[in-house]
Amino acid sequence: MKGKIEPRTLKGFRDFGPQQARKRQYIIDTLKEVFESYGFEPLETPALEYEEILLGKYGGEGDKLMYRFKDKGGRGVALRYDQTVPLARFIASNQSITFPFKRYQIQSVWRAENPQRGRFREFLQCDVDTVGTANALSDAEILALVYNSYEELGFKTIKILVSDRSLLKNIPTGAVGILDKLKKIGAEKVRQELKRNKLDLNLLDELQKQKPTDSLREIIQQAEKLGIEKKAIIFEPTLARGLDYYTGLIFEIEVEGYAGGSVGGGGRYDDLIGMFAGRQIPAVGFSFGFDRIYEAMEEQKLFPEELSESSTEILVTVFPGYEEQSMKLVSTLRDEGVNTELYLDEAKLDKQLKYADKKGIPYVVVIGPDEVKDKKITLKDMGAKKQETLTQQELIERFSCEGECEDCGDNYIC
Amino acid sequence: MKGKIEPRTLKGFRDFGPQQARKRQYIIDTLKEVFESYGFEPLETPALEYEEILLGKYGGEGDKLMYRFKDKGGRGVALRYDQTVPLARFIASNQSITFPFKRYQIQSVWRAENPQRGRFREFLQCDVDTVGTANALSDAEILALVYNSYEELGFKTIKILVSDRSLLKNIPTGAVGILDKLKKIGAEKVRQELKRNKLDLNLLDELQKQKPTDSLREIIQQAEKLGIEKKAIIFEPTLARGLDYYTGLIFEIEVEGYAGGSVGGGGRYDDLIGMFAGRQIPAVGFSFGFDRIYEAMEEQKLFPEELSESSTEILVTVFPGYEEQSMKLVSTLRDEGVNTELYLDEAKLDKQLKYADKKGIPYVVVIGPDEVKDKKITLKDMGAKKQETLTQQELIERFSCEGECEDCGDNYIC
Repeated sequence: MKGKIEPRTLKGFRDFGPQQARKRQYIIDTLKEVFESYGFEPLETPALEYEEILLGKYGGEGDKLMYRFKDKGGRGVALRYDQTVPLARFIASNQSITFPFKRYQIQSVWRAENPQRGRFREFLQCDVDTVGTANALSDAEILALVYNSYEELGFKTIKILVSDRSLLKNIPTGAVGILDKLKKIGAEKVRQELKRNKLDLNLLDELQKQKPTDSLREIIQQAEKLGIEKKAIIFEPTLARGLDYYTGLIFEIEVEGYAGGSVGGGGRYDDLIGMFAGRQIPAVGFSFGFDRIYEAMEEQKLFPEELSESSTEILVTVFPGYEEQSMKLVSTLRDEGVNTELYLDEAKLDKQLKYADKKGIPYVVVIGPDEVKDKKITLKDMGAKKQETLTQQELIERFSCEGECEDCGDNYIC
Repeated sequence: MKGKIEPRTLKGFRDFGPQQARKRQYIIDTLKEVFESYGFEPLETPALEYEEILLGKYGGEGDKLMYRFKDKGGRGVALRYDQTVPLARFIASNQSITFPFKRYQIQSVWRAENPQRGRFREFLQCDVDTVGTANALSDAEILALVYNSYEELGFKTIKILVSDRSLLKNIPTGAVGILDKLKKIGAEKVRQELKRNKLDLNLLDELQKQKPTDSLREIIQQAEKLGIEKKAIIFEPTLARGLDYYTGLIFEIEVEGYAGGSVGGGGRYDDLIGMFAGRQIPAVGFSFGFDRIYEAMEEQKLFPEELSESSTEILVTVFPGYEEQSMKLVSTLRDEGVNTELYLDEAKLDKQLKYADKKGIPYVVVIGPDEVKDKKITLKDMGAKKQETLTQQELIERFSCEGECEDCGDNYIC
């Protein structure tokens, strides 16, 4: 080692400390529970693929933004850029799989984008896709699942903007991207941009006059039967979605009160998944905008309060000569299912209390000579700044198990 | 795209389909629950770091096996090789953190090893470390946590082989690696190898005659007070652990009946975490051997049976003209917390039943003209090959919520 190495991270790459990591995990756990309630199953694919698998699959900028290099064996390899191409590769090498194959995948992807607010070079993607059926039911089910997911995360007013990619089939490619900006920049600026690009100014009006296709109507009707509120689904004919691989339904989610744009998008893409298998395999899917969801949930205070603090319920302090009593109590409390920390150093009681305070541990149990003599413990409520004297049995009963049913959300006491 | 691209993965890299992904998640969830019950908190660090952060930190082979490349900006970058050096980097850039800092980290690492049975180029590491205290209590706590973790995974007889790295201080470096192989190759071969390397043949006997150090004795005593069975801890003076950064306690876990070697290892390393911070920061930690644990659990059938099958409880079939009734029932069942799939295509009932069978969905609900007329549904038990007719209300009651308390493991009914 020469000189001092600066402990820095690469631009666009992030550490997630305990609090952030807990909140990220909360989003993941909430979504997974919804996915599984709909029968979606997990899939994981490697971080590195042969570059030929990924190259040329992501339109204009894709190949340029891809992290690629030669490995020790001289193979051209690339870091995962999305989860759809790896899914197509997986399907092609596992053709005996049962269709429809409904999978979710939650892994990091890497893109050498210019880092800016809300845009990172390493970020989590969270995708659900139904592969192997073109039936409108599968489109409707994805809509219902997505709606349900944002509900479960706690968002109050969820808007599903839907359209059919086929409405854009007579629009020049150059215009699609401009029209898609309508919500962001307004009609006036869209017209200016069309003009600047020597495109027909009437394109916007024409597109806005379009009616939903029969196929879109059917999907919307079925989605309502699967439980989506009627008013949540909004036909938005100018919707384009960036990627040109969509073949039918396209949609985006907006949540009220969040200014950062759509928090996820998806649609039907019938020509992509079969690319390695050499035959058409229809598919419909959705990608949750993980970082935007996180940001919106922070802004709207949708994370349960306890995630901001340690998951430890009780800190048990140590007193010189009485460590054994502390250790045994810690062991008993853990056996009873109470998340318990033992203070791990020799320190004055004051320092031990400060540790609990800094980490947001709500209760502290003190065992010292007085407590051992009286066969009691002292329980300090750090929030209320109160304390009381209890027997160990009383303490255990106080913190005995209660929880929330994973299935229905009701509270239970064991 | 030129020609057909073969849908292959890189050697040493793996896809994990639904069943494997569920089992991997089960191990992760089980371990996290133990970690959090001890007050350990999650940390995530980036997949890519500046290469100067990682280079020269992993002894002989490390730099050679590291995946390194230049990014688009010409920066030398490297893929995560372990989780300890990133932890040291994180600590150095977050020095206001509260110590002791107890963190767990479960992320992939990449090493360009020669792939062979049980050795991969991408694999999950699962680490727990207590940073910022040299107190024996923190060593004992890691031992207790580790013991408890393997217990929770279901292993019956867990052996903790312990030693103190200081017992090896008079052993020539070249001999340490040979002596460490004792359990694998036996005393005779160890002596042969010592001879071949012109090393003192008595080294083995001398080492085997060593007694535990006072510090090791203290750690063992405290670990017992924290609940480890006495007979589980075995003093093994020939234990060396590959890495030479250990400074005190070293230990490995073996589980009875598994021939693949130790399923995890760790120890105290007081000189590593401070390398970027420029001061000594003591630490003790453990790394779970994820793939070996998985293999051992498969062999010993420790995975809950339901993980082998879909997490869906009921498949609701569709009958032409009666789709609406099926959709509404699916929506109701999901609201009641029952994981339910809707068959997503038009198909004969037979094909729909086959789908449930292939995916291991235990129950199928049929709604057709007869059922709708009688205001009933038909429930098929796929395992028992029986069926019965129920009202929707009876069906919902049959699958109403029950579960296992996350805290204490007791069963509850909502």
